[in-house]
Order: sequence, then C-alpha cells, then structure tokens
Amino acid sequence: MSSVVPTKFKGFAPKTQEAWEHPKLVEYDPKPFLPTDITIKIKACGVCGSDCHTLSGSWGPYQRPDLSVGHEIVGEVIEVGDKVTEHKLGDIVAVGAQSDSCLQCSRCESHNEQYCQKQLVPTYNGKSVQSNGYITQGGYASHVRLNQHFAVKVPHNLAYEYAAPLLCAGLTVYSPIIRNLGHDLTGKVVGIVGIGGLGAMGLQISRALGAKKVYAFSRSDKKKQDAIKLGADELIATKDGEWVGEHLDEFDLILNCASSGKDANIGPFLQVLKLDGKFVTVSSPPLTESLSIMPYLLLMNQSTIRGSGVGSIKEAKELLQLYADKGLKPWIEKVPISEEGVHQVVTRCHKSDVRYRFVLTDYDKFFS
Amino acid sequence: MSSVVPTKFKGFAPKTQEAWEHPKLVEYDPKPFLPTDITIKIKACGVCGSDCHTLSGSWGPYQRPDLSVGHEIVGEVIEVGDKVTEHKLGDIVAVGAQSDSCLQCSRCESHNEQYCQKQLVPTYNGKSVQSNGYITQGGYASHVRLNQHFAVKVPHNLAYEYAAPLLCAGLTVYSPIIRNLGHDLTGKVVGIVGIGGLGAMGLQISRALGAKKVYAFSRSDKKKQDAIKLGADELIATKDGEWVGEHLDEFDLILNCASSGKDANIGPFLQVLKLDGKFVTVSSPPLTESLSIMPYLLLMNQSTIRGSGVGSIKEAKELLQLYADKGLKPWIEKVPISEEGVHQVVTRCHKSDVRYRFVLTDYDKFFS
Ligand SMILES: NC(=O)c1ccc[n+]([C@@H]2O[C@H](COP(=O)([O-])OP(=O)(O)OC[C@H]3O[C@@H](n4cnc5c(N)ncnc54)[C@H](OP(=O)(O)O)[C@@H]3O)[C@@H](O)[C@H]2O)c1
Ligand SMILES: NC(=O)c1ccc[n+]([C@@H]2O[C@H](COP(=O)([O-])OP(=O)(O)OC[C@H]3O[C@@H](n4cnc5c(N)ncnc54)[C@H](OP(=O)(O)O)[C@@H]3O)[C@@H](O)[C@H]2O)c1
Ligand SMILES: [Zn+2]
Ligand SMILES: [Zn+2]
Ligand SMILES: [Zn+2]
Ligand SMILES: [Zn+2]
Repeated sequence: MSSVVPTKFKGFAPKTQEAWEHPKLVEYDPKPFLPTDITIKIKACGVCGSDCHTLSGSWGPYQRPDLSVGHEIVGEVIEVGDKVTEHKLGDIVAVGAQSDSCLQCSRCESHNEQYCQKQLVPTYNGKSVQSNGYITQGGYASHVRLNQHFAVKVPHNLAYEYAAPLLCAGLTVYSPIIRNLGHDLTGKVVGIVGIGGLGAMGLQISRALGAKKVYAFSRSDKKKQDAIKLGADELIATKDGEWVGEHLDEFDLILNCASSGKDANIGPFLQVLKLDGKFVTVSSPPLTESLSIMPYLLLMNQSTIRGSGVGSIKEAKELLQLYADKGLKPWIEKVPISEEGVHQVVTRCHKSDVRYRFVLTDYDKFFS
Repeated sequence: MSSVVPTKFKGFAPKTQEAWEHPKLVEYDPKPFLPTDITIKIKACGVCGSDCHTLSGSWGPYQRPDLSVGHEIVGEVIEVGDKVTEHKLGDIVAVGAQSDSCLQCSRCESHNEQYCQKQLVPTYNGKSVQSNGYITQGGYASHVRLNQHFAVKVPHNLAYEYAAPLLCAGLTVYSPIIRNLGHDLTGKVVGIVGIGGLGAMGLQISRALGAKKVYAFSRSDKKKQDAIKLGADELIATKDGEWVGEHLDEFDLILNCASSGKDANIGPFLQVLKLDGKFVTVSSPPLTESLSIMPYLLLMNQSTIRGSGVGSIKEAKELLQLYADKGLKPWIEKVPISEEGVHQVVTRCHKSDVRYRFVLTDYDKFFS
C-alpha cells in the first residue's frame, strides 16, 4: 500500500442517473489542494440513507455526472497543507457529511458550523466556493480531500469500521438528543421513530446517556428483538392500531429517523408529547414529500416540531469518545468495496434492507 | 336592569349552518347549575376569528342547532354556587375560550388547564361532561354560566370593553410570548404574522414587554401605519418579493396569527430564525387546510415550529393587569348587539375586515 497522493482519485459513480443502482469505477481530479486541507486514503465508508436519496435522484439531479457518494468515511491522513494544525501524517480520522464552511461566522464560531449560512460544503455533491466551485466527491472512493476542521481523530480503542457510521448516522441522532435533553437523560422518556441506521444508534445513545425509558417506534413489530438488544425498553408497532391513549403526556423527545413520511402520520406523536416535549425530525425524505400537519394538533398540546441537521465537530468528537469509553458498537454489516459490493449496498439500503448499517471495507485490497 | 337569573337565556344563533351570516334571537336552557358555577349577566363580548370559523362550519358541524358563539365575554356576576370562593355578586369578570376542565390533573394543577387532556370544555360548542353533556353556549347572549375558575376579575382601571378581547385574542398571543421568551423581552427580536385581532395585540404586548425589535408581517403594506402605532418598528409585506436575505439569523420568535395558511408559505419564516428561534403558530385555519413544510427547511436551520392554544387563567390575570398598569388599550370597533349588529360583525370578521377587534356592546339596552 502506497501513501503517495495520486494525481487522479478513483471512485464509484453511476454512468447515468437512471443507472444509479450500478455505480462503476471512474477516475476524477481531486479537489484543488488548499493550505488548510488534508488528503485521506480511505479505509472504510458507511452507507447512509442519504446516499440512496442522492443517487436515485429523489433530492434532485446530481451536480456532476460522475458523482461518487459516501459521507461516513474513515481513513489515514496522507497529506497535510501548510496551515494544518490538527492532524499529522498517519493519523486515522473520520469524516461525516460536511467538508467545509466559512469557519468565521457566529454559527461557525459557536460549534454550529453545520448550520453555517455562508459557505457550507457537503462532503459530496456540494459546491466548494472555497475551491473554485469544485463539486465535491464522497467516500465510495480511494481518497478524499477536505478542510482539516471536518476530520475527527478516531480514538485508539474504537475500531475504525465502527467509527465510520458514527460520523453521519450517529452524529445526526446524538446532536438533537443532547441539544434538546442535555447529556444526562435521567428521568427522560425518549421515542425513536424508524429503526434503520440512524434509529438503531438513537436507541443505543439514548440508553447510554441514561434515559428512564426508551421506546422504538417501527411500522411493524419485526424489529422488536433487535430494538430491545439495541437499548429499547419497548417497541410500539405504529401500524398496529391504537397506541396513543396509553401514552398521553409521556414523551420528552420523539426523534423521527424514518426515511419517508409517506406512510407516516405524525399526529399521534404530537399527541403523546409532554407540554414541553419535542418531536424532532432528522428525516430527509424525497423532495416530493412534504410534512403535513393539522394545525389544531399543534395547538391542542402546545406541540413542538423541530428539525436537526447532522451535528457539530465538537459533538462528533464527544460521540466517538462515548462509544469508545462505553465499549459500544454500532450494528454493522461489512461489505468489501467493489462494483458488485457497491451495487448490493445501494439497492438494499434503498429498500431499508439492512441491520442496521452497511460499511464498505477492504479499500486497501481493492484500490492497491 | 334586573339581576334575577332568568329560567331561559337569550342569544343569537343561525337557524341553519347555511344561514350562518344571519344569527337570529333564540332562547335556550342554561347549563345545569353546579356548586362551583357562577352565572354572568353579559355586558360586552369580543368577536374572534374563531367565532367565524365555527359559525361558517369550517371547523366542522355544530354540536347543537341553536349555537350561540362568543368567547371574549365581560359581565357582572349575578349568581354564585355554594362552593364558589373566587367571585361574589356584583363583580365584573371576564371569560375567554374555556369554561371548564378537570382541575385535578397535573396539567390543570400546573397552570396549564388550557391543555387539560381529561375534561376540557370550550366556552361554546363544547360538551360539558361535568354537566350531563350539555353543549355550551357563548357570549353573543344575555347570560353565560361556567366554572368559577375560568372567570377573571377585571381590574378597576381597565374599561370592561377593553377587557373582553384580551381574554381570547390577547391571551392567545401573550401566553406563547412569555412561555417562549419570558416576561422580559430585552434584546429579543419578535415577528408577528397576520395583523388582525390577535396580531394587533401581539404587537402591543411585544412592545410593552420591551422587545428590542418588533416586526409586523402582513400580506401587503396597507396596515403599515397602524402596525407602527401598535408597536411595530417595521412592517414587512410578505407578498412583495424577496425579504429573507436581509433577515437571516435574526428572529427569536415569529408568532403566526394569520387566519389562513392558504396564501402563506412558512418556509421563509423558518429561514430567518436564529438557531434557537421559534416559529409559533396560534393560527387555526379551516380543517381543510393543513400546514405543509418541506422537511429539509427544518433541518437546514434547526428550525422549531410550535403550537399554542389560548393561555392559562394565571396568564389571563397577568395580562389584564399589564394592560391596566400600562394604560394600554386594544384597538376595538364597538357595535351594539342586535340581529343587525351580529350579522355585520360576523360577515366583516370573516373577511378580516376589522381594525382590529369588534366588541359587541349595549347588552343592557338590548336584553332589558
Ligand atoms: N438530518 C440529517 O442531517 C440527516 C443525516 C443522515 C440521514 N438523514 C436522513 O435520515 C433518514 C434515515 O436515514 P437512514 O440512513 O437511517 O435510513 P434507513 O437505514 O433506510 O432507515 C430508515 C428507516 O425508516 C423507516 N422507513 C423506511 N421506509 C419508510 C416509509 N415508507 N415510511 C415510514 N418509515 C419508513 C424504516 O424503519 P422501520 O422499519 O422501523 O419503520 C427504516 O428502517 C433518511 O431520510 C436520510 O436521508 C438525515
Ligand atoms: N390558538 C388559539 O388558541 C386561538 C385563539 C384565538 C384565535 N385563533 C385563531 O387565530 C387566527 C386569527 O384570529 P383573529 O381573530 O386575529 O382573525 P382576524 O382578525 O381575521 O385576523 C387574521 C389575519 O390573518 C391574515 N389573513 C387573513 N386571511 C388570510 C389568508 N387567506 N392568508 C394569509 N393571511 C390571511 C390577515 O392579516 P394581514 O392582512 O396582516 O395579512 C388578517 O388580519 C384564526 O385562525 C383564529 O381561529 C386561535
Ligand atoms: Zn448521512
Ligand atoms: Zn460560517
Ligand atoms: Zn378566540
Ligand atoms: Zn385537567
């Protein structure tokens, strides 16, 4: 394995959007190198529901024809710019859904860089104004290059395959949990809706932070045993009739991690909140789906609906440390990277057919 | 004027729902008298947007054919039950949108009786389980009878016509303002959407509590001068093109008081909130209208949407005192009660053609 930075990076990209389920190996120019950048030789990458939304076009057309997705990346630092202070060659670091921002506005300066309104650059399919409008490429690829701030050192006592999915799925649920309930969940009742990649980690994190009671909300009861092993006290099957009556005034937080709202009615979740409880949604369904609410349901219970987008780098560091310290492991299915492997994970992920996160591995073998 | 409690009450009710714009004088049985009840001889009643929604059937069919609406009531106590401790004969009291609740649950016991999930009874068109299922009648009427807890003494230095609209319109905006921002608005930026009855008082209250900046959001700029007199620093006409760009990250609270969401797009309001800012909606549009949100807009700015329903009796008392102490007056148009007067106010209110609240008056003259 060489640690030389190649002039071209290799990645998997669909030939056309119609053929999105069959990404093929392609080569492309790296992002122009800035003094604050690092280049990472990738070792593993998690597969996020957002990758499938993006590839399948449900969030709109790609910004470049040869788009390579993936934003749960772990790898080795093989190049550092002159102004890089946080990482050194050989470090094992993890990268999530964001690769740059202005780093100067009040949001960036208050650990809210994920909400920067000036120059936020997503890890893939994002336009980097900072780099002449380069459209970013993700982690189903040999390498990735980005601003040092958005890479987080992986603790020694956390296997790198586990770090990967924490950077998007884990962080996306960790951030709203601690922002809305604090770091100590003693006495709190939490519900997690949609037991997929995000939801599974939502159960683990709620339990790890000491929640009084953790409910999994799933469409059916098929995932009941898993949910309980992941940290739930109980699973409520939302399609199985009436459950609202017994749970009125019970929840401090309900976190919506479902990848679609099509078959979901959020009214019942609003009804079971405490008066200061919140329904926080991280779900980012196809653009054709909007969230529809009967206003009187909001009024009757003083209900709160809040959104949340990934999390801050500070929170990502905390989260890796939490998993390392508690010996927690996200539930993953490892798949060696290859055209066949990528095909398999994107098609199965699109159907939410995974328990509970795919991680593409064996990058060294494939790309060497 | 006699203070004898009549065996029948008189009020104005449409003969059929189709004829809702022409309420006629009717007689009906009072609610059975309970030991905790008081009977009020009405002196004035404000006209709420909710009266028109109810009469016109946009919230569904009436619970009784001879429905008399009105829930901004002021009058004189002319009867008190054996267990009444808070009022005495001759008191001038005000009543809002709620006439009873269980008064025992944790919500009722924590000044959240407006969110009681056990036995909440609206002032009109509500079923009183406490009184054998009697369907309640409102304040376009000679008298009203209700649980003592839901009547508030009018301060001596506040004219009774001004107290009336504070009990629904005023309270509905006061409660979410103080619950979300506290009683001291120093440094806070507030936006009020929809400058009708509720919105006008929202401007007055935000100003009176010391907000740093108060914006009125109105569909056009027709109400600009009024809004400024009411307490706004500026009016933003939402139909006049692009205003979002200059106001990013500015608002602590945007309070939606519009009576319809049909012509409204809430996306821009979510975009201009601070990260911990809230869009609170008290709007209760026709049942056919749902609130529709693109989920990614919630995620991008960690936006919060919250509902709020009227307010507590504690808050109603505070609000009457605030208006009395500051010498504030809601902007009202007085109309003497009569078939013609009621016809006029409901048709004009339905078109939001009022600056800014009708109050039906001269009850003594009409009903004696
Ligand atoms: N806010 C952010 O920053 C952020 C970050 C990452 C991901 N996301 C978004 O979060 C969502 C979840 O991502 P993920 O990776 O966890 O996806 P996932 O693994 O596919 O899990 C999604 C879960 O949603 C439920 N679900 C699937 N189809 C559904 C439908 N038609 N109606 C209702 N529920 C359905 C399923 O749970 P049950 O079988 O238990 O019902 C499924 O396991 C996606 O929309 C993704 O784009 C947002
Ligand atoms: N949550 C509660 O407990 C509670 C209590 C009382 C009332 N309400 C509800 O609050 C709402 C306002 O009541 P109100 O008595 O203040 O009514 P109102 O006096 O008729 O004022 C409503 C205002 O909404 C705006 N508006 C009217 N039609 C609109 C449309 N088609 N699209 C967008 N905006 C429109 C207008 O403001 P501009 O001209 O400035 O745009 C109008 O002045 C009603 O839905 C009422 O039922 C709720
Ligand atoms: Zn993701
Ligand atoms: Zn920034
Ligand atoms: Zn009202
Ligand atoms: Zn109660």
